[in-house]
Amino acid sequence: MPRRLLRPRELARQLRLRARRQPDEVEEYLEGHGADWAAIAEATPADAADILEAISESAAGELVTELTVDDAAEVLEELRDDLAAEILLELDPQMASRILMEMPPEEAVDILERLERSEINALLELVEDESADEIRDLLTFAPDSAGGLMTTDIAALPIGMTAGEAIERLRLLHEEVEDLSYVYIVDEAERLVGVLSFRDLVFNRPGVGLEEVMIHNPVTVQTDTDREVVAELTQRYNLFGVPVVSSQGRLLGMVTHESVIETVQAEASEDFATSVGAGAEETVYTHVARSVRVRLPWLGLNLLLALTVAFVIESQTGLISREPILAALMPVIALLGGNGGSQSLAVVIRGLATDSIPSGRSREIVARQATIGLFNGLALAVFAALVTMALIGLGVFSTSQASSAQIAAVVAAAALANLLIASTSGTVIPLGMRRIGLDPALASSIFLTLITDIVGFGGFLLVAGLLL
Amino acid sequence: MPRRLLRPRELARQLRLRARRQPDEVEEYLEGHGADWAAIAEATPADAADILEAISESAAGELVTELTVDDAAEVLEELRDDLAAEILLELDPQMASRILMEMPPEEAVDILERLERSEINALLELVEDESADEIRDLLTFAPDSAGGLMTTDIAALPIGMTAGEAIERLRLLHEEVEDLSYVYIVDEAERLVGVLSFRDLVFNRPGVGLEEVMIHNPVTVQTDTDREVVAELTQRYNLFGVPVVSSQGRLLGMVTHESVIETVQAEASEDFATSVGAGAEETVYTHVARSVRVRLPWLGLNLLLALTVAFVIESQTGLISREPILAALMPVIALLGGNGGSQSLAVVIRGLATDSIPSGRSREIVARQATIGLFNGLALAVFAALVTMALIGLGVFSTSQASSAQIAAVVAAAALANLLIASTSGTVIPLGMRRIGLDPALASSIFLTLITDIVGFGGFLLVAGLLL
Repeated sequence: MPRRLLRPRELARQLRLRARRQPDEVEEYLEGHGADWAAIAEATPADAADILEAISESAAGELVTELTVDDAAEVLEELRDDLAAEILLELDPQMASRILMEMPPEEAVDILERLERSEINALLELVEDESADEIRDLLTFAPDSAGGLMTTDIAALPIGMTAGEAIERLRLLHEEVEDLSYVYIVDEAERLVGVLSFRDLVFNRPGVGLEEVMIHNPVTVQTDTDREVVAELTQRYNLFGVPVVSSQGRLLGMVTHESVIETVQAEASEDFATSVGAGAEETVYTHVARSVRVRLPWLGLNLLLALTVAFVIESQTGLISREPILAALMPVIALLGGNGGSQSLAVVIRGLATDSIPSGRSREIVARQATIGLFNGLALAVFAALVTMALIGLGVFSTSQASSAQIAAVVAAAALANLLIASTSGTVIPLGMRRIGLDPALASSIFLTLITDIVGFGGFLLVAGLLL
Repeated sequence: MPRRLLRPRELARQLRLRARRQPDEVEEYLEGHGADWAAIAEATPADAADILEAISESAAGELVTELTVDDAAEVLEELRDDLAAEILLELDPQMASRILMEMPPEEAVDILERLERSEINALLELVEDESADEIRDLLTFAPDSAGGLMTTDIAALPIGMTAGEAIERLRLLHEEVEDLSYVYIVDEAERLVGVLSFRDLVFNRPGVGLEEVMIHNPVTVQTDTDREVVAELTQRYNLFGVPVVSSQGRLLGMVTHESVIETVQAEASEDFATSVGAGAEETVYTHVARSVRVRLPWLGLNLLLALTVAFVIESQTGLISREPILAALMPVIALLGGNGGSQSLAVVIRGLATDSIPSGRSREIVARQATIGLFNGLALAVFAALVTMALIGLGVFSTSQASSAQIAAVVAAAALANLLIASTSGTVIPLGMRRIGLDPALASSIFLTLITDIVGFGGFLLVAGLLL
């Protein structure tokens, strides 16, 4: 990780801009800049992965064959899983399976999950290795469960050892351990009985028994524990990782801090997508058919709900015929409300995601957001009224019977009401979803814009009916 | 972190539900359930923090005075910073400052940043301690910079030592080191010259010189490096933490994995808020005046932009007067487009945030999202046409001259066009923002709904003008 290696990263950037090069062109380009493909892959696999992402899959496959199995494994770990999977299929199956065996098993599994059952079997059959069995086991867990996230390359020591003996044992084993933040202590049935941080192990008297210094009954999760719970526990207790045990308490693996970081990132960015009815796991590389399948039902629901808005307006068409400018101004109020409500929605959903809104404080949070909506509503009501009067005065908009002051008053009152209701709804919707046990973000934007549209259109016409 | 300690957590939940208890009531309640306030605070500070969050600030202050300084420090670290700051002010200043000195300096700084300058000085003056100076130094850095995130309690060793000597030195020092994942090696001018993971240090021959085994020129950041860059580097190179150096290369501190996790979470949840013009740092506890100040300009901009939609409709009022049902149906198309566009927007912003869209692939990503929009548009066009014909047939909506088939055709064509354009815009907007060097999420929802509304209303009326 030397600093000078930010240079290949810059080269990777340059290559990206030149899209879809052939392998020999890439190598020539790198050499022309005093860098070498194999050397980059060895020193900074993440930069090498950037280069592979910039070129076509088959070209990437060719470049990978030029690497040692070790280096290829490290580079593929850094790639997007779906691209790594495609590259594996481009490679000679023998090499592909050797690369897989070289990876931490949970990384291999992440990649294999992108392949067909038959392709997976073909690759795993080529290796006579207990890693293959390990990988088969891991493939049975859901990708967003502790089982799907865990590494099995952990430091597990039998109870009864002294600290000194433990360090000597680890000296022999440690190269196979992925994350040595913790040492796990197991009984003769491989049940987890304690944990000790590696640093505490090192600084203890060599003669002390692990049993005396380990933490008993550590926090554990099971293979089917949701990744969100794993991330919560880790943050709550400031852990570097969490052990995963079977229902009988047998130690199976550990979710490392690296997986936790990825999980936290995935969970935090999930809310935006969920709130508009896109898939929580959807990425820009998700298959089109799958994206359509996930999004379409929400759009259909939205269409049906939107008809409510149509009913509201339909009931007021007489008013619109009398004063057509109303038809032009009503979407302005709806847009404003939608925006103001989404601001509250985004902030409240974040608050819920970071677990910082105890139920006892819900009422206070609603009051705060409503207050924000009130002040913003007042400011915008004045602004909108002035703009409306100016535009009518300048002849940009024209009224049939109403005065510009009347129209401005309607706009102001509707803007104030919609911003107030929007901020409140943007808070109440996610809090309400939580109360009934649903994901607070789920389709919340859809429900919110329904409300802001009903108020934006219906409320606007209601006020207009009263004032004109 | 024993497993049985999930029980106090449950008690904390129960207490939350009973909101705003007095300290003696809380203690009584805990005792009634066989738990003890001081014991919970000692064993699981995070659970104790939950209890404090559930009650009033003054009651929380009283409960904290019952703890040892050590335990109080650990509990306050787990609290929201603003609440911890309020509690500090409730305490006897002597105790408050002793608690602050007991915390890792960067945690103390996070809390102090919520107080007034004069309050901070009053607390720091009470301690004759180099920690106070350290904290003063840290307070000069922006909270979202590496300087604002770093801990200064790190393991720094002079070059020239052997591995064995280093371990002996750390044996004496390690209790003051917050995160011992890495040992940093400095020259006589305290400049960082190398890094070694603690595990590599332990498993090296005791006689080997640090210089021979350390990694030279490690990745570093400076105090003013943005936290987003810190998080990116950490994830890119799979680090447990990043050293922070001065412009002269002097080692100042380290951003730990714990801070990185918090940063990743904050950054990932920032996008949703930014996209609708709420503050990236805004929480549900942000002062109302500050929230209003951040949000209002975006709402004002939205109002001005929304007038474009009004112009578009204004130009078609003749058509609306002739066929008033159009006024009722046009928001349905706008809502659908807004929803479909937001789905693409959320997915693309996530892709950009996780750095998984190389510029070379932008065109491909746009094509994919457009295809999704096309398929969803086709499906919804059919559905919307059928629903419209049914509702007109049932007499729920009435037309003046047009046939139900004509209206259904307008709705179908407009729905298809808006979903296609919306998905494309939801992709092009954030990609375009990135290209011109802006935050891809910045106000992107506002621009998107502007487009979907213009197409939703204007496009709908355009199609209606052609078909009716």
